[in-house]
Amino acid sequence: MSEPLRRRGLMLVLSSPSGAGKTTISRRLLEADAGIVLSVSVTTRPPRPNEVDGRDYSFIDKAAFDRMVREDALLEHAEVFGHHYGTPRAPVEAALAAGRDVLFDVDWQGARALGVRMRADLATIFILPPSTAELERRLRTRRQDTDETVRARMAKAGGEIAHWDEYDYVVVNRDVDEALTQVRAILTAERLRRARQPGLVAFVKGLTG
Amino acid sequence: MSEPLRRRGLMLVLSSPSGAGKTTISRRLLEADAGIVLSVSVTTRPPRPNEVDGRDYSFIDKAAFDRMVREDALLEHAEVFGHHYGTPRAPVEAALAAGRDVLFDVDWQGARALGVRMRADLATIFILPPSTAELERRLRTRRQDTDETVRARMAKAGGEIAHWDEYDYVVVNRDVDEALTQVRAILTAERLRRARQPGLVAFVKGLTG
Repeated sequence: MSEPLRRRGLMLVLSSPSGAGKTTISRRLLEADAGIVLSVSVTTRPPRPNEVDGRDYSFIDKAAFDRMVREDALLEHAEVFGHHYGTPRAPVEAALAAGRDVLFDVDWQGARALGVRMRADLATIFILPPSTAELERRLRTRRQDTDETVRARMAKAGGEIAHWDEYDYVVVNRDVDEALTQVRAILTAERLRRARQPGLVAFVKGLTG
Repeated sequence: MSEPLRRRGLMLVLSSPSGAGKTTISRRLLEADAGIVLSVSVTTRPPRPNEVDGRDYSFIDKAAFDRMVREDALLEHAEVFGHHYGTPRAPVEAALAAGRDVLFDVDWQGARALGVRMRADLATIFILPPSTAELERRLRTRRQDTDETVRARMAKAGGEIAHWDEYDYVVVNRDVDEALTQVRAILTAERLRRARQPGLVAFVKGLTG
């Protein structure tokens, strides 16, 4: 599709309880759409066996994290299960200015904090599981989590879901292909918002002479 | 796609200058999506040769039009080129309450008037032609208009385009398939807005028990 008009990138936030499919949808969205890049969070928690530094997270120590907070180098940060997480500011601002979109895989605290500072650039989606039973089944088959962590995440899921009504869009993930199609439609629509296409001012001036 | 959650229908408004492709896009959208119906306007102007009463417009006389205005049976009405046009209220309200969407093929005056009364239910799209030359070419090849009407519509096009910045979304119609895909993405996204899915309240209550 042609895209000759100058536009400002947008921040697409995906949140959900663990196990609702957010990570799969995020990965497939990034594969399918070259116009959006992932915001890689920094964290002080240790990497899981399958995680790659700089791809899944940038793994940093507490001193480096504290320095980023002090220097206002994080758009938002929060503590979850005793570990610290944050969103580096510089790559996000560079992408938006270049007309590229940025995907955020964050929880409700992250979404809310981003909204406080960047509301005009934000489109937020909450992904719900089709049922509690399906949510637990998905958490159990991920395997890399211990039973204790599964129980902790199930307990946390209710708290996360309680914030569904702070989001612009809600997608119920009954089928991952359908949910991905819906998320992509939201991204397409948000790109077509008048306010995200600053190039239209000059284009319309050319049309009407 | 499954759609078990109760939702409230939305009003999708398409506006553009004559010749920008709005009517083709509307017709193809209605063919492609059974969930949206066209709001058929009433008008006092005589039918064109290819127009069907009750499909393109409901053709009524001035006395009947005035009676609808008096009885507040029109959501909006306006006068264009000496003819009166209006949007009947009852079919729109019935469709929205039943969770069906309604498409409006109206000009900026109609869009603005609908917005005054029904803003929360509205999503508005302005369709731009790719260039002034292409707009005139499309008007000339429609043939059913006289040269005088083409000149009048070209003159009016500038006035219509001047209102592009009152719309939520802007689609540049370089290619009708691409424009249709974009309009459908907007419709899909608007249906996923949290506020348009009142059934989610009960669904989430079931999830979190």
